Amino acid sequence: MSRSLHLNAFVMGVGHHEAAWRHPRTDERRLLDVEHFVELGRIAERGKLDSVFFADTLAIGPNIRRNSQAVFEPLTLLAAIAAGTDRVGLIATASTSYQTPYGLARSFASLDHISRGRVGWNIVTSAGADEAANFGLPGRPVHADRYERAEEFVDVVAALWESWDADALRLDAAAGVYADPEKVRRIDHRGRHFEVRGPLNSPRSPQERPVLVQAGSSESGKELAARVAEVVFTAQRTIPDGVGFYRDLKSRAVRHGRRPDDVKILPGIVPFIGETETRARQLEREFTDLISPDYALRQLSAVFGVDLTDLDLDGPLPDLPDESVIEGQKSRSTLVRNLAREGNLTVRELLGELGGGRGHRSLAGTPEQIADDLIAWVDAGAADGFNIMPPYLPGGLDDFVDHVVPILQARGRFREDYTSSTLSGHYGRRAVTAGIASCGEASGVAVDIDARFSAPTPS
Amino acid sequence: MSRSLHLNAFVMGVGHHEAAWRHPRTDERRLLDVEHFVELGRIAERGKLDSVFFADTLAIGPNIRRNSQAVFEPLTLLAAIAAGTDRVGLIATASTSYQTPYGLARSFASLDHISRGRVGWNIVTSAGADEAANFGLPGRPVHADRYERAEEFVDVVAALWESWDADALRLDAAAGVYADPEKVRRIDHRGRHFEVRGPLNSPRSPQERPVLVQAGSSESGKELAARVAEVVFTAQRTIPDGVGFYRDLKSRAVRHGRRPDDVKILPGIVPFIGETETRARQLEREFTDLISPDYALRQLSAVFGVDLTDLDLDGPLPDLPDESVIEGQKSRSTLVRNLAREGNLTVRELLGELGGGRGHRSLAGTPEQIADDLIAWVDAGAADGFNIMPPYLPGGLDDFVDHVVPILQARGRFREDYTSSTLSGHYGRRAVTAGIASCGEASGVAVDIDARFSAPTPS
Repeated sequence: MSRSLHLNAFVMGVGHHEAAWRHPRTDERRLLDVEHFVELGRIAERGKLDSVFFADTLAIGPNIRRNSQAVFEPLTLLAAIAAGTDRVGLIATASTSYQTPYGLARSFASLDHISRGRVGWNIVTSAGADEAANFGLPGRPVHADRYERAEEFVDVVAALWESWDADALRLDAAAGVYADPEKVRRIDHRGRHFEVRGPLNSPRSPQERPVLVQAGSSESGKELAARVAEVVFTAQRTIPDGVGFYRDLKSRAVRHGRRPDDVKILPGIVPFIGETETRARQLEREFTDLISPDYALRQLSAVFGVDLTDLDLDGPLPDLPDESVIEGQKSRSTLVRNLAREGNLTVRELLGELGGGRGHRSLAGTPEQIADDLIAWVDAGAADGFNIMPPYLPGGLDDFVDHVVPILQARGRFREDYTSSTLSGHYGRRAVTAGIASCGEASGVAVDIDARFSAPTPS
Repeated sequence: MSRSLHLNAFVMGVGHHEAAWRHPRTDERRLLDVEHFVELGRIAERGKLDSVFFADTLAIGPNIRRNSQAVFEPLTLLAAIAAGTDRVGLIATASTSYQTPYGLARSFASLDHISRGRVGWNIVTSAGADEAANFGLPGRPVHADRYERAEEFVDVVAALWESWDADALRLDAAAGVYADPEKVRRIDHRGRHFEVRGPLNSPRSPQERPVLVQAGSSESGKELAARVAEVVFTAQRTIPDGVGFYRDLKSRAVRHGRRPDDVKILPGIVPFIGETETRARQLEREFTDLISPDYALRQLSAVFGVDLTDLDLDGPLPDLPDESVIEGQKSRSTLVRNLAREGNLTVRELLGELGGGRGHRSLAGTPEQIADDLIAWVDAGAADGFNIMPPYLPGGLDDFVDHVVPILQARGRFREDYTSSTLSGHYGRRAVTAGIASCGEASGVAVDIDARFSAPTPS
């Protein structure tokens, strides 16, 4: 069986490569231009992509001199993009650490109404000490506490989204009946972190509930994803690593009473696309050559949660604390350490490798080579699709949509047109049943997990 | 001197009248249609109005069966309207009670970038017990505490908006310099309610800072308005009351070191517009006849913070607690009590009076009569302009823009076209100086307050 891919455009400023804004293929002034981001939504829609996605942080970056910071807050930005697009899904990152469940549930419900059912929430917790300082917390929040709060937060949000039955809204002007009070309920949540009465002050949104997305690959992150996420973004650099992550996460989902296909796994790729492989590699090198080592070392420091700004660029990466003890970006730190060790890279070479996608896989080649690679990962059982991270924007997304997508379509591996008007439809959600599966709850549906995980037949 | 008016369109669902959604002039399905709200923005822009404004609450209303609830959250909705308009200002209500200063500062800065300088923040505190229950607080927050928090909250938000100098952003791609770190500062706020380090993770927004709006007329509300607000929405039913409020607030502003003209005072009006006065009054009566008393009594209960649902509709309003002791809508409760007493109204008649604008002044007449009335208020020193609250939408706003605005323009009392591209420009803001004036701080600018307050010469 040849499976159809899912494709998300992960867009960031004028490109994911940390030096993108310095390259002649970008116009750095567009960082401040909302029309730039609306155009990215339209390009993704032209390519029939499932969604566009915005990451987020709640503090200024480590090096204001070099870093092209985000200007826009994702929810307001997506509302503007919603107004300029019709079908593409819109995924916003929002943290469970410094918001209230009621406020977040309402903003996403509003955005789901505005976009007529195209919204997804990328659930993150906030690890950074810089972020904590902007919200009155001393030091860095502890990993386990963050995720405990996140689990409860998500459950409250889901309950609020479901506090209006789909048919609660009556709008019967003649009788003067706006809604049926029997079909709008308090949630009366009393948990360790939150007490929330409800109901939500917004009728059931078009998707019933926005799509839940998760992108952390720590142990706690994977458990949250397995329980609630419909889409998972992940950084995987090899097919064996990808297969391992994929099987692990799908098995966890099954343990939570879900079907393997209820959660779509999308590793990130940073595509450098050229008419020839040589031209693509040249293009990648142009970007690498624009990296500022001082900025890149600060980014590396943030991954491990320690100061690495004095590292010898031509020496090896020193011994660094293990994922189990650091309070930085846990799973990403392991990925970066392995990358340095296995490639026997100098720090300078490592920074070049990380410049494109901060640990995500860069891929330089012709459109055919890139399409072949993506299909090979899916057919090996390492991915359900990809989180496309163009190194420069909008050109890098244009190239992917105009040159790679048609090849995937011609091979029957990607939709020729949208078959749904909602994000959950694009990702193939089955009908929503009330609530999120509880831990360990069996679904009662027999799932042939081994068949799904055995090597699929290539197309 | 004939002063030019300021006009804000206060838009709500399919109209301010509580029975608007039941009247044949509205389509109740548009409550859920984002295009309806974009259209309202465009109508306001066609009329060259200063701004459109959305109120907000953080809980479901008192009577879900009868009430046409809000569907959209204001910030996401305004982002969508920003994308469909070019010049009209966009004012969103957001509460200081259940958000963080960093989160709110960032969302409004983002919206100011998205709209290219057209955003205002209507600062409210959340009085309701229903709202508190959605955010984990037992009971109703105390008035004084709410405002103390609000004062500090606003100062933190303003400091965050000013944490980037206007020229901090360099975007020098050749040199690889994104921003000048010397011009981006921490705010290091440590107050009673908040500790916030900063800086904001978004460059200075187009207006330097979004316009501050305030709408509470309690003692604490007026003090906050006098210190920081650039626009004040208020409910005043007679010219003498309006003059009293106007003089009081402008005098308070002067005591805070500001000029009287730094704060624009806009009483609300609910215009029923007809070709003849008779037709306008008929139209108003059609709406009054659609009021559901059970719903209206619940709204009245919310104003006083006590249960009034069993009141005799044909008796007088009973003795009710004074503004000084209630924790409901303080200044509005006094207005409603006075309205009932002075007019010797039955409860049923009072509900009819309140149905249009919940205490704001309804005005039925021809376009000429309405224009005359508005000009009379401004010339009497009772208003700088008006908060236009169409009883039904979009038709009521169309009628105001198409029939009343041209009269004001012909008389030289309203702009023929926009002369500014920002909301602060529309409201005539002087150059922003760093920070908000501190309590009692003299501006050093000599202001002839008596001259400004003496009776202006009619045009």
